[in-house]
Amino acid sequence: MKFKICSVDGHSKARAGELLTAHGTIETPIFMPVGTAGTVKAVHQHELENEIGAQIILGNTYHLFLRPGLEIIEKAGGLHKFINWNKPILTDSGGYQVYSLSGNRKIKEEGVKFASHIDGSKLFFTPENVMDTQRTIGADIMMAFDECTPYPCEYKYAQKSMEMTHRWLKRCVTRFNETEGKYGYDQTLFPIVQGSVYKDLREKSATFIAEQNLEGNAIGGLSVGEPAEEMYAMTEVVCSILPPEKPRYLMGVGTPGNILESIALGIDMFDCVMPTRNARNGMLFTSQGFINIKNKKWQNDLSPIDPEGTTFADRNFSKAYLRHLFVAKEILGLQLASIHNLGFYLWLVKEARKHIIAGDFAEWKTKMVKQVETRL
Amino acid sequence: MKFKICSVDGHSKARAGELLTAHGTIETPIFMPVGTAGTVKAVHQHELENEIGAQIILGNTYHLFLRPGLEIIEKAGGLHKFINWNKPILTDSGGYQVYSLSGNRKIKEEGVKFASHIDGSKLFFTPENVMDTQRTIGADIMMAFDECTPYPCEYKYAQKSMEMTHRWLKRCVTRFNETEGKYGYDQTLFPIVQGSVYKDLREKSATFIAEQNLEGNAIGGLSVGEPAEEMYAMTEVVCSILPPEKPRYLMGVGTPGNILESIALGIDMFDCVMPTRNARNGMLFTSQGFINIKNKKWQNDLSPIDPEGTTFADRNFSKAYLRHLFVAKEILGLQLASIHNLGFYLWLVKEARKHIIAGDFAEWKTKMVKQVETRL
Repeated sequence: MKFKICSVDGHSKARAGELLTAHGTIETPIFMPVGTAGTVKAVHQHELENEIGAQIILGNTYHLFLRPGLEIIEKAGGLHKFINWNKPILTDSGGYQVYSLSGNRKIKEEGVKFASHIDGSKLFFTPENVMDTQRTIGADIMMAFDECTPYPCEYKYAQKSMEMTHRWLKRCVTRFNETEGKYGYDQTLFPIVQGSVYKDLREKSATFIAEQNLEGNAIGGLSVGEPAEEMYAMTEVVCSILPPEKPRYLMGVGTPGNILESIALGIDMFDCVMPTRNARNGMLFTSQGFINIKNKKWQNDLSPIDPEGTTFADRNFSKAYLRHLFVAKEILGLQLASIHNLGFYLWLVKEARKHIIAGDFAEWKTKMVKQVETRL
Repeated sequence: MKFKICSVDGHSKARAGELLTAHGTIETPIFMPVGTAGTVKAVHQHELENEIGAQIILGNTYHLFLRPGLEIIEKAGGLHKFINWNKPILTDSGGYQVYSLSGNRKIKEEGVKFASHIDGSKLFFTPENVMDTQRTIGADIMMAFDECTPYPCEYKYAQKSMEMTHRWLKRCVTRFNETEGKYGYDQTLFPIVQGSVYKDLREKSATFIAEQNLEGNAIGGLSVGEPAEEMYAMTEVVCSILPPEKPRYLMGVGTPGNILESIALGIDMFDCVMPTRNARNGMLFTSQGFINIKNKKWQNDLSPIDPEGTTFADRNFSKAYLRHLFVAKEILGLQLASIHNLGFYLWLVKEARKHIIAGDFAEWKTKMVKQVETRL
């Protein structure tokens, strides 16, 4: 993997870059649509590529391990081939899902024992087998196995957890270095900074993570319920330590406003279920603000969802039609809303990149944050 | 509307034709995907056109009247514009839905009083207002308001119902002739033959319907639970009376086998929820037979859904991936299965047409009926 910084904003820490992977180049800052179980919910793969402009998508190690399972993924020649997506894929390690979804967790130094949220079967994830699983999945970017602490989290627990995450990282790196890609292309491994909302822990963790000298770095354990100011404060602390020449990935973030603010702090990569999950609830993000498409006020509104909209969901249909689909509980409503929201997120980071290169990012960001946070 | 018969099969009553409407030409025999509430469930409009090869879709008067309602459809300039579908549309009159979905029905000579299945509000459908509604919807082909008798149905009830349907047809025709298209193009009206499974009633009804001399004719009240032999027997009786120079539409039919057999009896047009509804339940129709994609036997099968499949659902994905999507309850599974099934139905009628023109339809049909009725 190679990362090249093309442009740095003069009035913030924002950067425009290019990330080269075995499955193509990603222009940063980038938003990565979440395809948990080998599909970005309600969206066709060719729509991700051609309509939405996705350059990389996420898969989830925990979900894919359970379903469809590694046997068929390996037989298919990896996740790219199984789901017919030929651009880059990043796999989350499953650390977050083990804590948020599974039952009967026992976290030990060796790894995590837990029960599958699907059938209750007993499973044991370790740094080593999570690396092996991601080798089989074949993601371009693999994530270290970590513990993602909840919010709020006591200092002592956060510290202990962070220290274990660091020890696990060492084991991840060892296993990663002992193995290689199964499908004839290289994979890379990103470590994850933890430390909850404690500045000194975040500093310690960022320093440790930076020392591992991997090809990119991630920040985890944020956007888990803490106030946005805490998230930005931690992100700023961590970004001041993580090496600037490597891509920085802020995991699980966030609203359009969160993304713009975090780009200003030096973040290059984002993922979040918000654009797709909210779409399925009728919450649409637009360049003018956000709307609840189920609201009666759109009943007779024949204007497009977003005048700046880049997808066919915006070009071909009206708010009134989309509202009708939601009211009638039609699947097409979920499809169009998901395409629109993802298209908007990709448009937003592309615009951010343009403005970083043009040198007026900070000014544009201030205006745009206000706009996207308006309820229409 | 114009109908031209291009070719007649030598060994059956099958015909290949062309139906010219204000929104384009339809090659018959044709299958019309059902878009009840202004969307073919889980399928994008451009997929209907470009992937599936749909030449005409259905809307439903009852559903569209309730949601989104006539005001916004009229404001949009008709259903074609509201849903962004520029090819022909046929609207079912809602007669069937009034009987199958609504509550508290009172059928009188004047019309049907009933309660909306959505909010219980009291409604009154008459032949006249159903014509007016279809004028506002703007379908290329409007359907007469009829009573669709259930199966089984006593002779006396079937006879009385048929006679009322005939009187209602007269009123439909009068209102249709008194009004005109609202959006600058012509619409046409198809009457519906009823008479349950009673040969003499079907003969009487077909004779009456034929006498009205409308531009096309439909057969209703079949595929409502009667044995397939009864359906074919009634279809044969009716087709022997309906004028051969006009298109014949067998409403609500059916399985791939039903469609092929009915083409052989002289039917030109079909609609059915089966390809879409069954798709959403994981039942796939293929040129080799039908499969339940949820079955464990497909878990590691990387072959395409249908080797003859014409859509990207067939070209880009495996049975194993589609099964995974169903097992994981992913919306994309419903999307791909719906596209595949509709693509198969459209492929089937297109093949039928080719074989009618080539002169070997009867032979091909016998072989194909066996194939499509095989459980894989």
